[in-house]
Amino acid sequence: MTGTAGPATRAGDEDRLARAALSRVGEPGTVALVAAVRRLGAAAVWSAVHAGEDPTADLPVTERLPATVLSGLAERARVADPERDLDRAAVLGARLVVPGDPEWPERVDDLARLGTEPLSLWVRGPLQLGLATARAVAVVGSRAATAYGQRVAGELGAELADRGWATLSGGAYGVDGCAHRGSLAAGGATVAVLAGGVDVPYPRGHAALLARIADEGAVVSEWPPGAAPARHRFLTRNRVIAAMTAGTVVVEAAQRSGARSTAATAARLLRPCMAVPGPVTSATSAGCHALLRQGATCVTGTEEVLEELGRPGEGLVDDTGARAGWRDALGESARRVLEALPVRGWAGPAQVARVAGVDQLTVLRCLGPLEREGLVEGAAGRYRQSARARR
Amino acid sequence: MTGTAGPATRAGDEDRLARAALSRVGEPGTVALVAAVRRLGAAAVWSAVHAGEDPTADLPVTERLPATVLSGLAERARVADPERDLDRAAVLGARLVVPGDPEWPERVDDLARLGTEPLSLWVRGPLQLGLATARAVAVVGSRAATAYGQRVAGELGAELADRGWATLSGGAYGVDGCAHRGSLAAGGATVAVLAGGVDVPYPRGHAALLARIADEGAVVSEWPPGAAPARHRFLTRNRVIAAMTAGTVVVEAAQRSGARSTAATAARLLRPCMAVPGPVTSATSAGCHALLRQGATCVTGTEEVLEELGRPGEGLVDDTGARAGWRDALGESARRVLEALPVRGWAGPAQVARVAGVDQLTVLRCLGPLEREGLVEGAAGRYRQSARARR
Repeated sequence: MTGTAGPATRAGDEDRLARAALSRVGEPGTVALVAAVRRLGAAAVWSAVHAGEDPTADLPVTERLPATVLSGLAERARVADPERDLDRAAVLGARLVVPGDPEWPERVDDLARLGTEPLSLWVRGPLQLGLATARAVAVVGSRAATAYGQRVAGELGAELADRGWATLSGGAYGVDGCAHRGSLAAGGATVAVLAGGVDVPYPRGHAALLARIADEGAVVSEWPPGAAPARHRFLTRNRVIAAMTAGTVVVEAAQRSGARSTAATAARLLRPCMAVPGPVTSATSAGCHALLRQGATCVTGTEEVLEELGRPGEGLVDDTGARAGWRDALGESARRVLEALPVRGWAGPAQVARVAGVDQLTVLRCLGPLEREGLVEGAAGRYRQSARARR
Repeated sequence: MTGTAGPATRAGDEDRLARAALSRVGEPGTVALVAAVRRLGAAAVWSAVHAGEDPTADLPVTERLPATVLSGLAERARVADPERDLDRAAVLGARLVVPGDPEWPERVDDLARLGTEPLSLWVRGPLQLGLATARAVAVVGSRAATAYGQRVAGELGAELADRGWATLSGGAYGVDGCAHRGSLAAGGATVAVLAGGVDVPYPRGHAALLARIADEGAVVSEWPPGAAPARHRFLTRNRVIAAMTAGTVVVEAAQRSGARSTAATAARLLRPCMAVPGPVTSATSAGCHALLRQGATCVTGTEEVLEELGRPGEGLVDDTGARAGWRDALGESARRVLEALPVRGWAGPAQVARVAGVDQLTVLRCLGPLEREGLVEGAAGRYRQSARARR
């Protein structure tokens, strides 16, 4: 039908509908399909697939969709109905978030380095995904966590929440669930990224937990409502957990563990990759120790996680020149955010954004570097100027 | 009396007697005293000190002994009697080992980089110190070890023994004692380095263990018989444990722990510095985790320790050129040792030395690189050619 080269020119509803359709007919993380969308636009790709044609037919051989991918797309396209999927999502209180949307979590676009950036994300829950992931840590690990791993994961989730950081995880038994619960218990933002539809609680035993996350945080998936959490989807899902966060902490993991794939993706994206040590006599810590031997950073608590997240810097504070005073080194946004923060009492990001005249995402992005410079103090998601800033 | 510059020209008994005396009157690890001996020779330094004079009086100001050191030397010299110390040692079955002796452990001379090489070592026990430390690992840690640390230390000592490696430690309660015991139980070589005389069992509760080590292994000290294990001597002692071994493993250590000083010396000497992780909830592992965060290698068992020890290489196998065949890349000694090893059955180092026509120390030094190249297999201190070597 289309098949001609050039980026999609029609955006908006058509793009959204096409991405909804592609989430149904294409398997997320398929490099060739993602490349076709990058080249031709989602609408053109879906339009061709929908018509039973090859959207890449006119492209050079190396850019064409492999036959196996094409036949899979065609097969599923026969029964796909993206409008029905979007309606069904609306009934569930879910929505489709696509690139360009205000709440699109821009960090995931770094997956383009690996050729597997998500085409869309189904989101269920009150959290604004972009804001929630602006200060977010992945806390992942073994389903068969020991009491030790459960305790560490829960404490991390809670303490990160106290410091204003969201916890992302996979909603699974063991480490994942404890991290989510710790965050919720401390009133923090938590996001469960699933390998099936946002309306398909998996594991079953976490139906209540996932419902609570959908009520207070966000449940996210690349797959459309109703999709089954098939075995092969978990590794695909893990890359999104790594990509949506500033860094990944593996709390407990056996030698062969999906959590190691999350950590590997974090490392490939040059994000901090951290592991919590445990007894060498515990098989459930063997994967963590293997990560440590591969260069992951040893972290024993929340302070060390935040320290590690601070390392890469975010370029808001200029550390290169001789520093006459830290005030001169601050970027414009950071300076405005700092000045908008109260000296006495505390303020949340929304209030700071109003005073500073910048958006909430900018506030959240500036807070990290300002905290690391010792200019801002934060607790329980609220912030104020530090003694140093007041001098 | 002397005080003139130039190295000592008289060696042998006079040097040995002087070093015995200096171990009594000087505090080991005193940089200025060690420098004076390096410059003037032990005999000249002792001769002057004995006469109540400053051996460095004629040297440039920067090389003179500080007044505090001089007064300490003079004070103790009044009552020093090195011949009586040597006699007393002989009665105990101990001996003084000095640089140049066949059993001098040459590795400790690397402490010259820090200016604190030992001037002599008192040794009690049947082990030939140079041979025993040619393949030796320091296994150190907390006196207040948990059951976990005790188990790991004991297993390390035993498994290192099985692989033909000696275990060095400090004879203390907890990790040290378990490492010694593990080595002894597996019939291995173990060396306890003390911070007091080799006849002063410390801690008291380890009197039987230290007696057994003196019977089967070696008890070593820089201090003369009868010297008290004063508090400040433990850090001084720790540097010798690090320097006499190919690498240091810290099994359990609190945040403030002497074991960290041993690890720090190992690192300063560019020797592998390893730490065993433990639960982050255990204060007794906090020092290990701090080491890991400072760059120590995470090790979870004997194989990983040996792998780490293999890293720096010992230059016996030439890895630089294009390698036509490994036989061409072997040094002369390594080739002779390899050819002297049995194809069937096993041989100990002494037998290999006889067949190869090299000394036992050379055999021990060649075995490590040959093992790492996969040319030699070892078990329980005995060795044979591997399948690869036979091809």
